[in-house]
Amino acid sequence: MSENKKNLTELSELGEFLLINKLTAPNITRNASTLKSIGDDCAVINYASDQKTVITNDLLVEGIHFNLQYSPLKYVGYKAVVVNLSDVYAMNAKPEQILVSVAVSNRFSVEALEELYKGIYEACEEYKVDLIGGDTTSSKLGMFLSITAIGKAPIEKIVYRNTANNKDLICVTGDLGASYMGLQVLEREKKIAIETQTQPNWDEKDYLLQRQLRPEARKDIIELFAEKNIIPTSMIDISDGLSSEIMHICNLSKTGAVIYEERLPIHQQTKDAANEMNLIPTTAAMNGGEDYELLFTIPLSEHDKIKDLDQISVIGHIAQQKEGINIIAIDGTPVPITAQGWNALLNEE
Amino acid sequence: MSENKKNLTELSELGEFLLINKLTAPNITRNASTLKSIGDDCAVINYASDQKTVITNDLLVEGIHFNLQYSPLKYVGYKAVVVNLSDVYAMNAKPEQILVSVAVSNRFSVEALEELYKGIYEACEEYKVDLIGGDTTSSKLGMFLSITAIGKAPIEKIVYRNTANNKDLICVTGDLGASYMGLQVLEREKKIAIETQTQPNWDEKDYLLQRQLRPEARKDIIELFAEKNIIPTSMIDISDGLSSEIMHICNLSKTGAVIYEERLPIHQQTKDAANEMNLIPTTAAMNGGEDYELLFTIPLSEHDKIKDLDQISVIGHIAQQKEGINIIAIDGTPVPITAQGWNALLNEE
Repeated sequence: MSENKKNLTELSELGEFLLINKLTAPNITRNASTLKSIGDDCAVINYASDQKTVITNDLLVEGIHFNLQYSPLKYVGYKAVVVNLSDVYAMNAKPEQILVSVAVSNRFSVEALEELYKGIYEACEEYKVDLIGGDTTSSKLGMFLSITAIGKAPIEKIVYRNTANNKDLICVTGDLGASYMGLQVLEREKKIAIETQTQPNWDEKDYLLQRQLRPEARKDIIELFAEKNIIPTSMIDISDGLSSEIMHICNLSKTGAVIYEERLPIHQQTKDAANEMNLIPTTAAMNGGEDYELLFTIPLSEHDKIKDLDQISVIGHIAQQKEGINIIAIDGTPVPITAQGWNALLNEE
Repeated sequence: MSENKKNLTELSELGEFLLINKLTAPNITRNASTLKSIGDDCAVINYASDQKTVITNDLLVEGIHFNLQYSPLKYVGYKAVVVNLSDVYAMNAKPEQILVSVAVSNRFSVEALEELYKGIYEACEEYKVDLIGGDTTSSKLGMFLSITAIGKAPIEKIVYRNTANNKDLICVTGDLGASYMGLQVLEREKKIAIETQTQPNWDEKDYLLQRQLRPEARKDIIELFAEKNIIPTSMIDISDGLSSEIMHICNLSKTGAVIYEERLPIHQQTKDAANEMNLIPTTAAMNGGEDYELLFTIPLSEHDKIKDLDQISVIGHIAQQKEGINIIAIDGTPVPITAQGWNALLNEE
């Protein structure tokens, strides 16, 4: 898909400046806070004086974070932006700008990079953020993406990881484990397709694939918090799996936690695929990762504000540190939670 | 140097979270504007309400932007930060924060990454910036660094590339071409050392090596501008070579320019090394790149403020667009300047 073919344009034909011009031609500025976009030594941002600036950067590496055998480049671009915006939402902040830097080998054509940027621009449109800068260079092997997301929030609304309190309710948005099951299905179907020379079968797996290949960040939840006057006591986005994230909140807040297995929101497609592949749905939900849902805590007194919201599940409560971090299995047995989160550094070949 | 040896620690022995803890243990916060540093979904920055935010990101790729055969990892870390801060100074702004993301293959040890971060922390100390976030992940091959630098300036002090005016004086800081000659010397000495099994000879090349391996950004010039009440009409940092940068300023400002070859500031070591290697010093100065000096324009009326400053050379003046962009050779011949800047995308293997 990304190999140079006769009718495609090699990167070296254009050179860096023309390539940047071509890739950034569709770019538009949406936010008044973007004073200067692409085209200078730096971009310039102007947030109102009552706003603080939040900022995050992630690297996405071909073969580690994405696989071009499954994932169209347009989806890679979209997902790369979304996973960074998710970090901004996890601060209860509003993203308004991104920087995108790309290193690619000469295996990629100009047209391939245009596909990547199509996905980036789609995410910018969907989340109303501006692409304001970055870098384009070459790599010896494969594609590397670096995305920086910048956002704003008034100081009293910013939510950290280390501020959960004993007895707070633990909540998650959406459902868990679907992205991980999507990846398992993609791996399996790829193998079968190679062995049998047939087309993969994606019946009844569409939700899993969407969650893995083209996830969304929970912009809607941050808007809901504003509307309902909810400020979580702590919050984190679920990128490495629920186990890992609840441990971050508890360790940083010096608390324990109790999670109830029966309360974990798991989509029917996730359950079906897990059963089909002899995996335990709870394991996918706890340790799968890449859900990009929000895990947050609120005081018990705020329960009324969220109890009727479809998008939010109460899955447990914060406990004292000495009580540990446990999941209560469906049969009532408490099981200590250990970090089994997705570890990029162990995923080497 | 970066290979795993018996007494070194493999990355997989630690895992991502412990590695991040180890690498960030020496980190300190210097600036009051850093509200939240490493350890949450985002960092949080709080600039005073009269300040705008400037931001830039660069990727540095092993084998393209740095070569671990010449360059100790500590220098790679230092230089990676400096080249990004240079972009902030080029806006006439003050950098206060950086984000650092690293992707490495399992060829690197924990100790190798600690060396890299030593250089990063040295740059933070020297330039008084805070390391506030980033990402650590694996790559299939080699090392990739992504540095985001964030700084501040009041809006009336921010200097862009597209605002040079006809008849403005064109100035550069420091001297040009030394970094490029440093690279040539390193390449040559490496070859000789391999062929003859001898140690490289760096006599009288120390300045060139320092400029290539451990350059500095012109923090001092921005401070001088403030002290002398100078606001350039346009500015850019010289990363791709003077030719390329003057073309950026002229094309964006819709002007021409005249540069005088005899005015180009070239260090004696640069001249000597160029002569020794049958290269033309002016070519190194115009097209070499990686100088990280500032190229700026000021109105003729401001000449008195800079004429006695050692750090600044007036090398020409802005002209009308129709006059083109020319360098007047020492013999008086005008030669059109074309972009021969260092092009990362053409440097592929």
